[in-house]
Formats: sequence, C-alpha cells, structure tokens
Amino acid sequence: MGSRGLGRSVNPDIDSERKASSFDVEKLVNFLDGGADRTRIRRAVERIINSDPIFSQENQYFLTRTERYEAAVKGAVHLWRKIKELGWTNDGPEVYFALRTVGRELAFGIHNGVFIPTIIGLGTDAQIAKWVPLAKDYQIIGTYAQTELGHGTNVRGLETTATFDSSSQDFILNSPQVSSIKWWPGDLSRSANHAIVLAQLYTKGVCHGMHAFIVQIRSLVDHSVLPGIKVGDIGPKMAFEQVDNGYLMMQNVHIPRENMLSRHSMVTSDGSYIHQGSDKINYISMVFTRVRMLSFELLPALSKACVIAIRYSVVRRQSELKPGEKEAKILDYQVQQQKLLPLLATVFAFHFMASSLEAFCKQVNSQIQTKGNISSLPELHALSAGLKALLSGTCSAGVETCRRACGGHGYSMFSGLPSLYARAVASCTYEGENTVMFLQTARFLMKCLARVDCGQPLPQSVSYLSEPFSLHCSAKEKTDFLKPLLYAEAYKHRAQRLIKDSGNKLQSLLQSGVEQYVAWNITSVQLARTAIAHCHYVVVKNFVETVEGLQLDPEIQQVINRLCDLYALTGILSDAGDFLYDGYMSGKQMDLVSASQLDLLSLIRKDAVSIVDAFDYPDQQLNSAIGKYDGYAYQCLFEWAQKDPSNTKVNLAYEKYLKPHFQSAQSKL
Amino acid sequence: MGSRGLGRSVNPDIDSERKASSFDVEKLVNFLDGGADRTRIRRAVERIINSDPIFSQENQYFLTRTERYEAAVKGAVHLWRKIKELGWTNDGPEVYFALRTVGRELAFGIHNGVFIPTIIGLGTDAQIAKWVPLAKDYQIIGTYAQTELGHGTNVRGLETTATFDSSSQDFILNSPQVSSIKWWPGDLSRSANHAIVLAQLYTKGVCHGMHAFIVQIRSLVDHSVLPGIKVGDIGPKMAFEQVDNGYLMMQNVHIPRENMLSRHSMVTSDGSYIHQGSDKINYISMVFTRVRMLSFELLPALSKACVIAIRYSVVRRQSELKPGEKEAKILDYQVQQQKLLPLLATVFAFHFMASSLEAFCKQVNSQIQTKGNISSLPELHALSAGLKALLSGTCSAGVETCRRACGGHGYSMFSGLPSLYARAVASCTYEGENTVMFLQTARFLMKCLARVDCGQPLPQSVSYLSEPFSLHCSAKEKTDFLKPLLYAEAYKHRAQRLIKDSGNKLQSLLQSGVEQYVAWNITSVQLARTAIAHCHYVVVKNFVETVEGLQLDPEIQQVINRLCDLYALTGILSDAGDFLYDGYMSGKQMDLVSASQLDLLSLIRKDAVSIVDAFDYPDQQLNSAIGKYDGYAYQCLFEWAQKDPSNTKVNLAYEKYLKPHFQSAQSKL
Repeated sequence: MGSRGLGRSVNPDIDSERKASSFDVEKLVNFLDGGADRTRIRRAVERIINSDPIFSQENQYFLTRTERYEAAVKGAVHLWRKIKELGWTNDGPEVYFALRTVGRELAFGIHNGVFIPTIIGLGTDAQIAKWVPLAKDYQIIGTYAQTELGHGTNVRGLETTATFDSSSQDFILNSPQVSSIKWWPGDLSRSANHAIVLAQLYTKGVCHGMHAFIVQIRSLVDHSVLPGIKVGDIGPKMAFEQVDNGYLMMQNVHIPRENMLSRHSMVTSDGSYIHQGSDKINYISMVFTRVRMLSFELLPALSKACVIAIRYSVVRRQSELKPGEKEAKILDYQVQQQKLLPLLATVFAFHFMASSLEAFCKQVNSQIQTKGNISSLPELHALSAGLKALLSGTCSAGVETCRRACGGHGYSMFSGLPSLYARAVASCTYEGENTVMFLQTARFLMKCLARVDCGQPLPQSVSYLSEPFSLHCSAKEKTDFLKPLLYAEAYKHRAQRLIKDSGNKLQSLLQSGVEQYVAWNITSVQLARTAIAHCHYVVVKNFVETVEGLQLDPEIQQVINRLCDLYALTGILSDAGDFLYDGYMSGKQMDLVSASQLDLLSLIRKDAVSIVDAFDYPDQQLNSAIGKYDGYAYQCLFEWAQKDPSNTKVNLAYEKYLKPHFQSAQSKL
Repeated sequence: MGSRGLGRSVNPDIDSERKASSFDVEKLVNFLDGGADRTRIRRAVERIINSDPIFSQENQYFLTRTERYEAAVKGAVHLWRKIKELGWTNDGPEVYFALRTVGRELAFGIHNGVFIPTIIGLGTDAQIAKWVPLAKDYQIIGTYAQTELGHGTNVRGLETTATFDSSSQDFILNSPQVSSIKWWPGDLSRSANHAIVLAQLYTKGVCHGMHAFIVQIRSLVDHSVLPGIKVGDIGPKMAFEQVDNGYLMMQNVHIPRENMLSRHSMVTSDGSYIHQGSDKINYISMVFTRVRMLSFELLPALSKACVIAIRYSVVRRQSELKPGEKEAKILDYQVQQQKLLPLLATVFAFHFMASSLEAFCKQVNSQIQTKGNISSLPELHALSAGLKALLSGTCSAGVETCRRACGGHGYSMFSGLPSLYARAVASCTYEGENTVMFLQTARFLMKCLARVDCGQPLPQSVSYLSEPFSLHCSAKEKTDFLKPLLYAEAYKHRAQRLIKDSGNKLQSLLQSGVEQYVAWNITSVQLARTAIAHCHYVVVKNFVETVEGLQLDPEIQQVINRLCDLYALTGILSDAGDFLYDGYMSGKQMDLVSASQLDLLSLIRKDAVSIVDAFDYPDQQLNSAIGKYDGYAYQCLFEWAQKDPSNTKVNLAYEKYLKPHFQSAQSKL
C-alpha cells in the first residue's frame, strides 16, 4: 500500500518489484478483506491503534518478562477504555480489527476469551447476570484452570476434587498431589482474583466427573492470595512473555454452593446431583475456539512471515547468478523460490479453508440452536480437529522455513520471525495436541468407512468415500497438472486408498484375534497419516471449489489460480510416495508435476512482492527490521541495534574480571 | 548411571524401565566414550565442573541477557585459572571434556575458537609469537570480524576495505556503507579489545581481495572505544544470550603494516603485494571447524533432547491404552515411539559418521602436512559441506520433534528443550548456509559424474557412481529389510539415480542452448535433493560398515544393529517417493519396510531408557526439569517454578492499573 510507505524513500530493489506487478494490489487487498468497506474500516482502526503510544511495540524486543506483562495489562485496560470512548460495539468490525491488530500483546486473553465465555456457556441466567458484567468491566479478572501438571489431553483424568459438604453448604476444593496442581492457565499468576476450576465433583461419596466452579483466589481489597491457595508463575516459556501463566494449588478451599456453574448440572442443598439437558451444545464452543485460532493466530503468523521473508529476499543480494554481473536478489534463486512461494500459496489455501470451516461451524450452530439438531457435530468435530492439526503444523513449519530463508538475520529477534515461530508452534499443542487430533479425525473416518460398507449415507466431507476409486492418473503432459479437477482427483484417490488400507489393517488384526485397543495402537502411525491425507484433500478441494466460484478481475483470478495450482502440486511432490505407491501416478508423471511446479514458481515470483503487499500489514504490526515496506533492511537493523540498552549499560564483567588482565597487556603491545 | 541418581529415590515408572534393560548400560557408556579409561576421566572432569558453583546453570532460566553475559565472562576466566591450577594440558582429554561440559556457556568462544587459530593459521612466526601468548592469557580478547550486514555466504563480496598508505606505512580501514558494517561477531560488543577484520586489500590502487588484519578496537587502559570505531551489540537473538554478538564500523582507522596477517601474502613498505605459498592449507581449518561442530554442538543437542523426551515419556502417563486400566506411559503409544525412537537411531548414525569424517579430515591433513598433497581436499570439502547440512538440519528438526513430543511441558524453558532447539538450529545457517552447502556438494557430484563418463578414477566416497546400477530391490519379506546390504543398496540406487538424472537435466539444458548459469539455477532444487540423497547414502553406508567392524558383547551389538536398521528403514519411509519413483521398490515392498520398521520400534522401546542413560549426561548438563535421572518431572517443575523471581516481585501492574477496578467489585460480591 502506498500509504504504508508514505514520507520515506523506498529501496529501488523493492520498488522495481512493485512496478512490475501484474495486478492492482488494492483489488487483492479488498478481496482478502471481504470488500472495500471492510478495508476502509480496518485501516481506520489500525491507524488509531498504531498511532497510540501505549500500543507501541517499538522497543518490545528489549523488555524483560515483567515489563512485557506490565505493558500488556496497561494495554488491555487502555483498549477497554478506548473502545468505550469510541463507542465501538463488541460484535462490530472495529473491535474485531482492533483485537486482530494488538490482541496477542494484551493481557486478559484467557479472561476475555475463556473465563467469560465459559460462564455464559455453563452458567445459569443468575450466574451470568452476577459475574459477567463484573468481568467485562475488569472488576474481576478470571482465569480458566483446567490443565494440571499431570493432565492435559486426557481431561477426564484430572485429579482436582470439589467435594460437597452439606453441613456448610460449600464445595471444598483440593489438589490431592503434585500432579494435580493446575498448571499453565494464563492471567493466573499475577492478574486473576478468580478462577474457573475444573474439578471432579464428589457428593455423597460419589464422583460425578468434571464440573466447573468459580473460585476466588485473591482478595479484592489488596490482591493478597486467599487462605488455602498457593499460586505463582510457572516460569519462562518459549514465547508469550507478556502472559502470566500460573500454577494453582488448593487445600481445603471452601466456595459457596452457588459457585458451581449449573446450567446443565447442579447439586441441591441436600447434596443430590441433578443433570439436566444436553451439554453437547457446549461442545461447539470448543470448536469455535479452534476455528478462531486458525484465523486469529495461525494465518496471521504465516502471512506475516511470508511478508517479511519475501520482502527481505528482494533486497538481499548475495553472490552472482550470472558471472560478472551484480549480485542477484536471493528470490531469483530457484531454491529460495521453492522455500517461500509454496508458503504464499498455503496462506491462500488456509484462508479459504478457515472461511469455509467457519461457515460450516455457524451452520451447525444454527441447526443446534434452532432445531436442537446435533447430527452434524461429529463431522464438525472431526473436521475441525484434523484441520487444526494440519494448519497449525504447516503454519508453524512454514514460519520457521521463512525464518531460515532469511539466513543469519532471521536469527535476530529484530527480524520478527523468531517470536512468530515460537508463538505459532504453541498451537500445535494447545487446544488439542496435534497427533491426538489427527487420531480423532481418523476414528471418525473409520466409522464412516464402516457406514460405506453397510451402504449408509455419509456426511458431506467424507462422501467421497463411496465415490468410484480411479486407478490411474490421466495426465500426459505437464500442463495437464494445471487442471484442478485432475489434481483434486489425485488427492482424493490418495485419501480413499489410505482410509481403506487403514480399515483393512484394523479389520485383519481384529479377525486374527488382536484386541481392539491393541489393534488401534499398532495401526496408529498409519491412521495419523490417513487423517492427514484426508485433511489435505479437504483443503485442496475447498481451494479448487472456492476458486471456481469466484468472480474476480481476470488479473486477480489468474494470481489465485496459480496459487491454487502451486499449493496442490507442491503437496504432491512432498508426499510423492503416497501417489506413486499403488501406481496411481508414474515416475514420469511425477516429473511432469515437478516441471509444472517449477514453472509456477517463476510465474509467481514476479508477483510475489505485490501479493504480500496485499496482506496489507502496517510496519508496526510486523515489527520486523528486515520486512518493512520500504525495504531498507540493513539500515533498520543498524538503527534498532543502537537502541539496545546493553549498549549504554556499564560493563560490569569488564570491571570485575577483565580489567587487570587487559591493563597488563598495555606494556606488551 | 547409578551415580547419577544417588541419594534420592527414583520414580518407579522409570526404575522399572531400567530393571528391564536387555544390556549392561555401563558397557554402552564405555563404548560411546571410546573406552572405560575415558569414561573415568570424563566423569572426574564432570564432577569437578558440576560441583563448582561458578559453573552452575541452576538459575540460568531466570537471568537477563546482561546477567548471562557476565556469568559467561566470569566462568571463562574461572575455567582458565582452574585449568592452570589443575595442570591440565590443552590437548589432553580433561580440557576436551571440560569444554564439552560447559564450553557453550562460557564467553570467549570466538576468541579461543577462531581469533587465536586464525593468527596461528594466517600469521607469520613473529606474529604468532607476539599475539598468541597475550591472547591465551586473556590479556587481549579478540573477535573475528568477517560477516557484514550485507554479506555472509558470499565472502568475496565483503565490502570493508584496507588500503595501504605508504606515507604512514599504515593500512587504513573503512566501512564504506551501512551494508559493510561487520555484524554478528561473538565476543565483540562488550569483551573484545582486538578484532581480526576481513577486508578487501587495496594497495597502489589495485584490489587484491580478502585479507585478514588485526585491528585494536578498544583501549587496554580503560576499555573505551578507539577513535574512528563504532561498536555495539546487535540486539537480542533466538538464543546465545550469553554471547555479546556485535557490530563494528570503521572510519579511517589506521593500523600498522605489521598487523596484516602475512603468512601467505604481505605488503612491502613500498606498497608491493607479494603472495607466497598456497593458502589452500588454511582451507582445512574451516573443514575442521565444521566437523568439530558435529561432535560438539549437534550431537550433544540431539542426544540431550532424546534423553529428556524419552525419560519424560516413561513418567508421563496419559489416557488409557487398555480401557479400564491405569493410564499408559506415553512411550507405549506407537505414535510416540515413531516420533522419538528413530531419533535415537539417528544419534548413533551421526556419532559414527562424525568419527569417520574426523578420521578422514586428519588423514587429509596429514597428507597435506607431510607431502603437500592436496588432492583429497575437494572430496573432503564436498563431504563435510553436505554432511554439515544434513546433520544440522536433521538434528535441529529432531530436537524440535523431541520438544513437541513433550506436549505443553516441552514449551516451558524448564524442560531445557526450547534452548536446545534455538541453539541447534543456528547451525543450519552458520559455517555455511545449508542449501548453499548442499549445492556445493552437488557441484562436486556433477564433476565426478563427468569423470565417470570419461572413465577417470573417482574419490572413494563417490566411487559407487561407477558401480552397477541395480534395477529392483530383491526383498520378498519383511525380514529381508533387516539385511544391511539390502537397504544400503537401496540408498545407493537412489543416490545413483538422482545424480544421473540431475546430470542429464543439466546436459540437456546446455545442449538446448541454455546458458550454464541458468541451467544450474533452474536445476538447483533437484541438485539440492540429489546432494541430500548422496549424503544420506554415505551415512547409512558408514553406519553399516561401522557396525560390521565392531567387536562387542552380543547384547550391545544387538542394540546397535537394531538402531542401524531403524535409522535406514525410517529414512526409506520418509522419502518413499524416491525409492518408488522408478520401480526400484514396489508399494508391496514399502509395506514390508513399514512392517519391519514398526517391529523395530517395539523392540527398541524396551531398551529406550537404558540407551539414553548410556549417553551419561549428569542432570546439571541437561538442566531439564522433566529429563532428570530420577524421573520426578512434576516435582521438579513445581520446585523450579517457585524460584521464579516474578513470584516475589511487587506487582506494579496491579498497583497501577487494576487496584481501583478490583476494589470497586468488593461490594458487589
């Protein structure tokens, strides 16, 4: 965007790229935003945020963990005031864009994103009326304490107990042993005065499983920790320095009976346990969280990394490509294109996938809300689990590829890339560990396979399982691989084959007398691969169908078509073995895929800078010395380095350990 | 090791693993150390180091960059004194083990590892006599200033100039523009008072290319920066917080003529340039640096990560494997075995490879020193470049796999894994960016291919290029894939095929009139893959040959044989496409590989803890809360978290931003 570089000259090496663009960048910006109106609103919000010094991330790379936390609290309180002042409504686009711009740098992510929604989801109307207004005004700050030292993935195995005591009418919370200490909750170690604690409910000596309780953990008067509670910070992490992830240990902590969130189950004053209605509805909120993660965390991480790496790759010149000529831009090396441009295609593939998944989510939600129809939940669960795993794995690996493609400077925090990686990769673990997620998808696929065998109808995303199984890829020349139907068919074949193979392996193990659980475990490596192949097909198919449905200017359409081809062909090459395995494709055809993919690289190379410009991140949001719009990477690195506080501090190590050594050399030189 | 866990109980979940070991761990320890004598010396050195509070890394995770730097300087000076006191000699095993134990945490890595060796390599006898004793006694600290903001890989493109001025008899050093500022040198920003500066030598108006100059940058009296010099810290990085990587900018800095390192070239007082002897000999020191990196950095990183992840995986229990039973150790899940056990095999593959490469290095060096015979240098260069790239890429990815296999706790710095990754991955870039390295190996392979066509003899490591090209893998059942000759043959076939295909592609491009440099560039993606296949074959072949030559107790031999099989078969599965491509292997055979590989996983699973115990790292060296010998992961995480300084600091964010909010809630609850 012109506006991004106003008032400063631009490095000619990047300027020439922009002049050579085959399309109007602004049109692609509008398309990605979902219309010119939204672009306008987004930019207005970004201007407000980025011109406010309180949100500035300028010297972030020099701050300690404590300083980062303090800035994050300050920022969160400031944004809350600002939103009130400006009259932005919670479901309006302004708040959405404001959070997208600074959200990850603010405190109270768990408070706003999990504590409040959990009360709304699991609380009675009275509980919502009591707690939510206080929470929304930051009069209380709450965390969500589920994960324990010894339990994450297996929620049912959590050990914290909440025992109803009818004499006091209280629940008594306990952390029975070290492994049951709550561990990781954000906003806990320094900010929160309340926690939603997930605990095994005991009443009348019977365990009723996991339930949620609101526990006050700190005094509202002086923020001191309440009796029976032990709370603290869990120590440094790979990233998220601004978040006060904490631990929480409880010994005989009493809370009133009404602090159990009781929309679906309650304990009466005589200690009877009553379960009412279905809690499957809550399940959808977990899915929404996963889907939001795709658009709010993973896509921004990968797209920012692409912006930084691609801009840097046209201003970095290294070695002669043609002997005797000026050193070449590193993006002109085929090996660099191969690293970066498929990731650009991946951004688009995942952008469209996240949109479709969100739409499906809303549709299922509305079926549930209006008709109480939960029949699509299993499919939605399987899709969102597998796609979360595929996208988080691919995005974090992609960010790291971008980082390494920037050589030494990618190792500097100033590039912005190390923190993008360290954050993105966290999402491979939270909201469901990826391998576990893939295996959940695989379980759904195996169930669907059984339905095929019985002739039962299939959910839409797996309906291809009952479609014909083609034996050979029909491509004869490299341009055949630019036909979306052709490569989508190849992905379909691979998924079909792997699903059937996994099913057969399970079947034959069971028939040979192996126990069900053993059969599953010794097939699980293959099952995980199977789920990946399924998700990969879903993404390719969705990309192809989206592209077909677009009505765009031909110049933009061409760019997106090429990215679709590139995404699909790169995937075939990466997993070539899967496509060659049963002779669906031949080695000769694989050569054609490769030739076609390399052709695409050189075509997309020409528009690479304009494509990343269209992601339209202001420099403040990238916070990268080497990815700025103006392309002056070295100047910026040098400027930022000079601000490093260690450059002005007294060098105590010299004073204490080196001075006498050095002074004795003076006479010898 | 028993000694590692003395005085403390051991988690029964890890204890039972040790009791079930199929072999005597101590025997494997001795084998890996190269004899029981060396084990004894190593342990004695480790005890000295680890009992010294100055080398303690106990609270390292809480220190700021400046504190880390100060501790590193203190440690380096302390070690230097200790070595003198104990009378350890520089080439003895004690110093070697001491550096292996704490080396990466000490300051002056570049001073000791590059500054001094460069003077010895490039200096005249007089220069060596003048500078080296001062440097060895830390009376001067030097850095090695080669890389610039704008140039890393292409050393010839460096822009710093050293111009001889015959009137003053000085060289005048200049950094002509921002991109020529020296960037990254370690020990520079705070410690060094001298720098070896690599600069383009100009005399009588003629440029003679890159030469090395000793430049004083700070006063020996008060450590102030000298006139004309600008020096500072380059800012925070992904890791290496203890290293003061710096920038250096020079404007008309005069140094005396005798400060040009002049073993191979000199400038006379009238400004004449004289080049004498061959400087190829220096080349071998770069190779030595790369090879040392394999044993000193990459192997320790991967092996430590394996220790941590495997120990954690037998004390972490999550979900039921068999319904109704106790939660299972996560290492009992096939998907977890598939992540970790092949990495254990990789440690052994690379251990043997590093030893062989080191031996080859020494052999070439002795040919050079005794006979001036440099004929093996190109082969050594190609091997060390490609293997450096393969090993650094594989080790860093492997460390990250271990980290992620520890789920949420792998994200905590206390696991030790994030810093292992952040360090290991740096080696993918330094000492030669990996893709560039692979392409250098590929260039050598293409030259060798041309020799085959001319019937000329080939260096040993590529002699297989003239061996017969087998068309089909002969395996008929899964046990066939436990035959080393059979799988080594498969790797050979793949390398042969890729090398020939690349050669053919280059040839046909040239014949169709494409310019040489274009042909190379548009084949480079394939060439890089080819180099990987070659290196992979070299590693497998070396593993197979080493295993065949061993004379070990059968119980140890069996473990190592299995690891060799596992390494090779996992590689075939990962790159299945390469083996299926031309029908060398069939899909059916690939299934056999897979079946055989899964069998190996469950066999090695039983000895996994004993194998990592045999790496024999004291807990202090792992510095991991979840990888300790005693297996009490949760207890240790909890202990360490309580030491976090943020748990005792006043919470200013509460005082400043939250207090009034919270107090207003008091009346409402």
